[in-house]
Amino acid sequence: MAGRLQLIYTDDVGDERLDEFRDLTTADRRPDRPGGRGLVIAEGTVVVRRLADSPYPVRALLGVQRRLDELAGDLADLDVPAYITPADVMADVVGFHLNRGVLATADRAPQPSVADLVGGGARVIAVLEGVGDHENLGALFRNAAALGVDGVLLGPGCSDPLYRRSVRVSMGHVLRVPFAVASGPAEWKAALETVREAGFRLAALTPRPGSVPLWEAAGDEKVALMLGSEGHGLSGEALAAADVAVSVPMADGVDSLNVATTGAVAFYELTVRREGVAADARR
Amino acid sequence: MAGRLQLIYTDDVGDERLDEFRDLTTADRRPDRPGGRGLVIAEGTVVVRRLADSPYPVRALLGVQRRLDELAGDLADLDVPAYITPADVMADVVGFHLNRGVLATADRAPQPSVADLVGGGARVIAVLEGVGDHENLGALFRNAAALGVDGVLLGPGCSDPLYRRSVRVSMGHVLRVPFAVASGPAEWKAALETVREAGFRLAALTPRPGSVPLWEAAGDEKVALMLGSEGHGLSGEALAAADVAVSVPMADGVDSLNVATTGAVAFYELTVRREGVAADARR
Repeated sequence: MAGRLQLIYTDDVGDERLDEFRDLTTADRRPDRPGGRGLVIAEGTVVVRRLADSPYPVRALLGVQRRLDELAGDLADLDVPAYITPADVMADVVGFHLNRGVLATADRAPQPSVADLVGGGARVIAVLEGVGDHENLGALFRNAAALGVDGVLLGPGCSDPLYRRSVRVSMGHVLRVPFAVASGPAEWKAALETVREAGFRLAALTPRPGSVPLWEAAGDEKVALMLGSEGHGLSGEALAAADVAVSVPMADGVDSLNVATTGAVAFYELTVRREGVAADARR
Repeated sequence: MAGRLQLIYTDDVGDERLDEFRDLTTADRRPDRPGGRGLVIAEGTVVVRRLADSPYPVRALLGVQRRLDELAGDLADLDVPAYITPADVMADVVGFHLNRGVLATADRAPQPSVADLVGGGARVIAVLEGVGDHENLGALFRNAAALGVDGVLLGPGCSDPLYRRSVRVSMGHVLRVPFAVASGPAEWKAALETVREAGFRLAALTPRPGSVPLWEAAGDEKVALMLGSEGHGLSGEALAAADVAVSVPMADGVDSLNVATTGAVAFYELTVRREGVAADARR
């Protein structure tokens, strides 16, 4: 018999069953950081639903009555406790007032290998280096999901995409778009080689002179789009490992777009734009 | 003889000359709101430089020594006072700690009419309806500037682009990209008519069935791209006024991009993508 969501009312701030929701601003840190338990935390009904549909094993929910009522039907078969508290008790436990009124925790799960990420039917992946800002990273995943990017490879200097703020800004899409991590120098080098061996063209996005407009570079191949940090761009090593340097041309005299927005434009070009025009040509 | 920037040191929190920087979270409100003086406020050296290059008449600067030293050379001919204070005095005056260390105030200036906005050489404009979020509005201006959009028409339900937070998120580009405002129903209707009469095709971005992928709709014409709010999209009236309904196709099952990101993708298609491909064809 399948499990059932267990709705449990409590208004005791000290209730030990709520401990994993306590003081969230430290509990969502990676397990190797002080106070960090490395839990995956979803905020709000939309993201909690995505968490429930993801590979991450949900542990518990905490929310106000109204939000848990909204979720209870869809999540009825989830065999975890769902703690219902008044809003002020929830705020005291969590450590701040949460507008979205509901939270869920989940354990981390093993990530795919780089070979798995680029295997199968993947056509377009994003390769990120030095994207340390959690909001930019979350927005990149949201944009990747919206535009049909098949996976994300995170290289050196990227922050943890499962950090609470990234999960929120991504609208939960970091829980859905597959990603692999290659943060050490040797791992990173090997990962780029694995991507190339899987038949991907490594296209480094850079404003440097000599880069080719993205629409000329894409062709019909599988493309791994390499994006660097907003401040410094891709490292010399990453540029050297690329097959082609590409750009999104900008109007004169303007600093470049935010990295997540640049990513969206490039993802668009490589996915819906390229596929759509190819479909038009076949008509 | 040209004026000169007047560097004035003060560490008196009560100094009346600093009054227009006082309690900034209310001073930047529109003049018709409580406590609002409607000043244009620029934060940080990058945005202060853009303000100095804009049509808005600068009134004064306030900053810590280091930031004013960075600016003093370039702004030497600006005939306004520049108050130098310690960081803690600046925080007490402004009402919060300002990482960026320098501020400038300016008066508002008359905006172009809709006819002026679409006259001259304008080829692509953005037409916004219901974009009430200051950060989205600022990001739209940043994206418009980066991708070479010629102007922005703000219809009903849009917030004030000269509000401090919009100025900051736009990286100062709201001070640079021309915009016109048509907020009342009759003005809005007339404005859309003026845009059409200037030879623009009104393209309404909407996920509705029957909309045409943007790359098929653009052709070689002048385009006014209509964007609605993130929650509700364009109104029925705006959709009815459009010449064509266009879309940025999305991957299945994913909620749409943030409105500023959608704007960036559409601006890219209508500006650098269209112009670039046309240039390639002429080679």
